[in-house]
Amino acid sequence: MTIADAPAIAQLNPPRRILLGPGPSPVDDRVLRVMSAPLVGHLDPLFVRTMDEVQELLRYVFETNNRLTIPVSGTGSAGMEAAVVNLLEPGEEIVICINGYFGERLSEMALRAGAKPIRVECEWGGPVDLEKARKAWRESNARVLFAVHAETSTGVLQQIAPLREIVDERDGFLMIDAVTSIGAHSIGVDRNRVDACYAGTQKALSCPPGLAPVTFSDRAVEKIKSRKTKVGSWYLDTNLLTAYWGETSGGARAYHHTAPITMNYALHEALRIVAEEGLENRAKRHERNHRALVAGVEAMGMKMAVAPEHRLWTLNTVAIPDGIDDARVRNRLLNEFDIEVGGGLGVFKGKVWRVGLMGAGSTENNVLLLLGALEKCLRDEGFKVKDSGVSAAAAFYAGN
Amino acid sequence: MTIADAPAIAQLNPPRRILLGPGPSPVDDRVLRVMSAPLVGHLDPLFVRTMDEVQELLRYVFETNNRLTIPVSGTGSAGMEAAVVNLLEPGEEIVICINGYFGERLSEMALRAGAKPIRVECEWGGPVDLEKARKAWRESNARVLFAVHAETSTGVLQQIAPLREIVDERDGFLMIDAVTSIGAHSIGVDRNRVDACYAGTQKALSCPPGLAPVTFSDRAVEKIKSRKTKVGSWYLDTNLLTAYWGETSGGARAYHHTAPITMNYALHEALRIVAEEGLENRAKRHERNHRALVAGVEAMGMKMAVAPEHRLWTLNTVAIPDGIDDARVRNRLLNEFDIEVGGGLGVFKGKVWRVGLMGAGSTENNVLLLLGALEKCLRDEGFKVKDSGVSAAAAFYAGN
Repeated sequence: MTIADAPAIAQLNPPRRILLGPGPSPVDDRVLRVMSAPLVGHLDPLFVRTMDEVQELLRYVFETNNRLTIPVSGTGSAGMEAAVVNLLEPGEEIVICINGYFGERLSEMALRAGAKPIRVECEWGGPVDLEKARKAWRESNARVLFAVHAETSTGVLQQIAPLREIVDERDGFLMIDAVTSIGAHSIGVDRNRVDACYAGTQKALSCPPGLAPVTFSDRAVEKIKSRKTKVGSWYLDTNLLTAYWGETSGGARAYHHTAPITMNYALHEALRIVAEEGLENRAKRHERNHRALVAGVEAMGMKMAVAPEHRLWTLNTVAIPDGIDDARVRNRLLNEFDIEVGGGLGVFKGKVWRVGLMGAGSTENNVLLLLGALEKCLRDEGFKVKDSGVSAAAAFYAGN
Repeated sequence: MTIADAPAIAQLNPPRRILLGPGPSPVDDRVLRVMSAPLVGHLDPLFVRTMDEVQELLRYVFETNNRLTIPVSGTGSAGMEAAVVNLLEPGEEIVICINGYFGERLSEMALRAGAKPIRVECEWGGPVDLEKARKAWRESNARVLFAVHAETSTGVLQQIAPLREIVDERDGFLMIDAVTSIGAHSIGVDRNRVDACYAGTQKALSCPPGLAPVTFSDRAVEKIKSRKTKVGSWYLDTNLLTAYWGETSGGARAYHHTAPITMNYALHEALRIVAEEGLENRAKRHERNHRALVAGVEAMGMKMAVAPEHRLWTLNTVAIPDGIDDARVRNRLLNEFDIEVGGGLGVFKGKVWRVGLMGAGSTENNVLLLLGALEKCLRDEGFKVKDSGVSAAAAFYAGN
């Protein structure tokens, strides 16, 4: 046998970027440190306890008592696919509210799972058109309605309660994407009677990407158990995952896959930090820094892309002023200031900057720093800065 | 809104176990350290270069020039599912060689993907029955044949070349599970003309679980591109993943999911360690420690479950002597010596111990320590230890 020469690759030395894009968000040093802890086996008593505790902490942030509450061993998109392939059977209709990129993605996943998407197409940058959604629901045979709680592509927060009202017209199931709200905006899975909800770890939970928290109501579990066909994906089958994660706390576990040990250490620590701060305090912090950023952005003479009442606190879409070079500004922020902000996606490509203030990244320092750096770049681009964004934000902080 | 009280969960303090089970394997401190490096965005120039380098290093360990060589963002089982759902279309036959738990699993995945498994059932603890496989291939319309290179459930190494001969009878595709061979036993993807191969990071690569290296030959990619149906899984669709990982090194990248940043740092460093040692040296080290372990086990009067010519170096199945309590011995090893060894799976449940000597875990120290600890436990169980396993292993090391 002949083996090629081994490639000579230098060691990685990642810089400490200020991550103010759509994710990943900055990770607390406590979480970074726990990832260098030695691994134990996935059947080790310590890891079994870790799994129990991660589930308990996830129930807290989802605000639910759902037994089936686990992190799927993939990124947020794997959580999305897990919700789709488990809750829907081939041939089944689903009403999908699309007001951004991620509703679109779910529609594509539903198609691939053999389901029949009924698309409720709404404007990008606004919430779901409830009358359109109600009409689609009434005219369909769908048992499931889907919407995105926090559209990462547009920065729009969607109220969940009115969607629940719609599906209650005939005892339907509500599926919610909470990737960019979890840990910042209250999801209230039990309060809103959400039947299937998935999230990511890399936004307001400030944990590296790699796991996808999901939760299913008991009636969703019943629907899954009464499927006529097996779940198309073995890897994401919640029946098998439930047996692996333990039917009950401390209960027996049936081997499925090998859980990502280190990522679960990280999620455990990230969720402990959320619990220490408390969901209410965390929500207040995210709102405060969001409002300070908006004050600064508007003072400079720029506009937010979303109306005030629909804005996310975690993901802020700033309309790029006419004549300003999107990529050049973002590259300068990255290369001169070590600050990452995101570009637009889909319909919003080239039209907005996506500024993430998520988890450990939602701080007064980051807001002031970004506004200062942005002002410098905008001036160099020839944009007429109206007033100092930093001063406006500082004034906001002084009063709030 | 009312939010429940936050649970009070203590900080994790994982002990430094000696991981000699079926995986995860011990992780080098260099890999542990890089996981505490700060995160960069997944579109950051540094991460894009990291992705290129991970691909280059993976090509080295797979021994291939395949362009489509990437880590899937899930564990080894996600890699298995990626191979299945991409290469097979609904209704398509596939010949599946089953000589252990993981062939069985792939058969289940193929069924769920709508394919038609043609099962070649072989004895657990032995290699694939080539005549049975050839007969099944000739009598079927399958275009794909699957086998496991390294059966983690039985400790059997399967020769790949004779399987290639079978599929060459009509220009077929060869799919190989290399989860427990990668980084120890030579896979030779190009030499053996393997068309689809998947692996895990947590065995002989000594990287935490969470990513699944996969590689597809150009003709496999052609087969996938000419599918009549879309790949059932959006998350695992290699067409989308190829666009995300870049068609060419340094090329443009289309957003798909957010790659697990930290896990890719870890894989980068783990593969750098493999490249520094070199695949040949690594193979020799794994063989040497395996043979020392066998010398010790047999000296004590126990038997290996697999015939010498079919044994894996990475995963050693030791037959549990009559009258010895499987779980009690494993618990003592864990609790008194901090050593994890695995129990049997499926047909081998309660009949074997699975001793992993993988990656950073394949050391002379670990072999001697395990043999010493095992001897103590066996004596306490009333097993008549013939000769000292430690002495036999030491003698082997002295001469090899």
